[in-house]
Amino acid sequence: MQTVQEGTRWMLRLDDGQDLFETLSAFATAQGIRAGAVVFGIGMFRRATFGYWDGTQYRPHELTVPHEVVSLHGTIARAEGAPSLHLHGAVAGPDHRVVGGHLLRATVGMLQELLVESFPSRTFGRPMVESFGLKMLDLEPPREP
Amino acid sequence: MQTVQEGTRWMLRLDDGQDLFETLSAFATAQGIRAGAVVFGIGMFRRATFGYWDGTQYRPHELTVPHEVVSLHGTIARAEGAPSLHLHGAVAGPDHRVVGGHLLRATVGMLQELLVESFPSRTFGRPMVESFGLKMLDLEPPREP
Amino acid sequence: MQTVQEGTRWMLRLDDGQDLFETLSAFATAQGIRAGAVVFGIGMFRRATFGYWDGTQYRPHELTVPHEVVSLHGTIARAEGAPSLHLHGAVAGPDHRVVGGHLLRATVGMLQELLVESFPSRTFGRPMVESFGLKMLDLEPPREP
Repeated sequence: MQTVQEGTRWMLRLDDGQDLFETLSAFATAQGIRAGAVVFGIGMFRRATFGYWDGTQYRPHELTVPHEVVSLHGTIARAEGAPSLHLHGAVAGPDHRVVGGHLLRATVGMLQELLVESFPSRTFGRPMVESFGLKMLDLEPPREP
Repeated sequence: MQTVQEGTRWMLRLDDGQDLFETLSAFATAQGIRAGAVVFGIGMFRRATFGYWDGTQYRPHELTVPHEVVSLHGTIARAEGAPSLHLHGAVAGPDHRVVGGHLLRATVGMLQELLVESFPSRTFGRPMVESFGLKMLDLEPPREP
Repeated sequence: MQTVQEGTRWMLRLDDGQDLFETLSAFATAQGIRAGAVVFGIGMFRRATFGYWDGTQYRPHELTVPHEVVSLHGTIARAEGAPSLHLHGAVAGPDHRVVGGHLLRATVGMLQELLVESFPSRTFGRPMVESFGLKMLDLEPPREP
């Protein structure tokens, strides 16, 4: 993994076999990012699971062959004392067709290039919203979570 | 809706049931954004209509069940004295397949997280270009539209 | 083509018929961008070829009718004394279905709106990585390529 910073922006290169959520969470912790955005990511996923929220749960779609990542975006917040990532994405398979949704799990294939931005004066939260049954982004949480 | 600003960047959280175009237009007006970009958006759409430009008109594709937003990008300009949004996007349905195109209409489902950037010293225009029959982005319009 | 700059950010409008890679490479050279990101692009492609890396080569998928661009992201580096672009993207056709992958070639249809960011103090490299048989992003190359 490589990381270069300029101001509130980082370019990241994740490497083959890295877990996307674990790696980005460790990065957010190491850099003290409490409010940020994964502006975009491209590369490949060896494996990934996308979810579709049906109102009650995420219906999973598991991909077990490598796919080209054509879209990867999200937010970095804090929840329960740790980084909380919300990522959506889409990938193209061997037939070039694109599937995607709410990203539940992903393992980098070959490499992943990401642009990350932070809002240094902020802490975003991700509290459980009971009416939806989901953790949802709170840009101005009442206190530091 | 929540909005936080840092310099020329905003994170927005739109809420369930909000009209995407109306809400972003009102935001641009309120913040005085005359040149900007919707860097990315993720979340869900309750309903959305995507268009494919066939050279004469947008062939519409209307989605009436909620979809996960995997891609949402665009520009903010001024046209006819009001904000002019040009948004493209893609969404994944219950079967995780992705459809998209030029976004004609969208209603937020649950939430939408967006990163917006402005170019404060600029005004982008969106004049009608007769040869194409479309309004097209002009980064340096002859005078403030 | 139009280009406006503010700090380390550019908005670009490419025009109908322009070759995407040639135009962005010439832009990077003209602006002296040795490390950067194509944050997003939207518009249309008249023609485009996407690749899926099967471990040995890119399996091509050529599109010969115009498609709406719903996702376009990538990085700008230097390789062999010239700009090196790595772009991934996805497009929607007349049936609104989305295909995509690693972008091998593209010709702009009507227009393409792009947001580009640079890291002025950096030079990214793109050396051949023999174990993968691919040129891969190096955020901190040993010396200026």
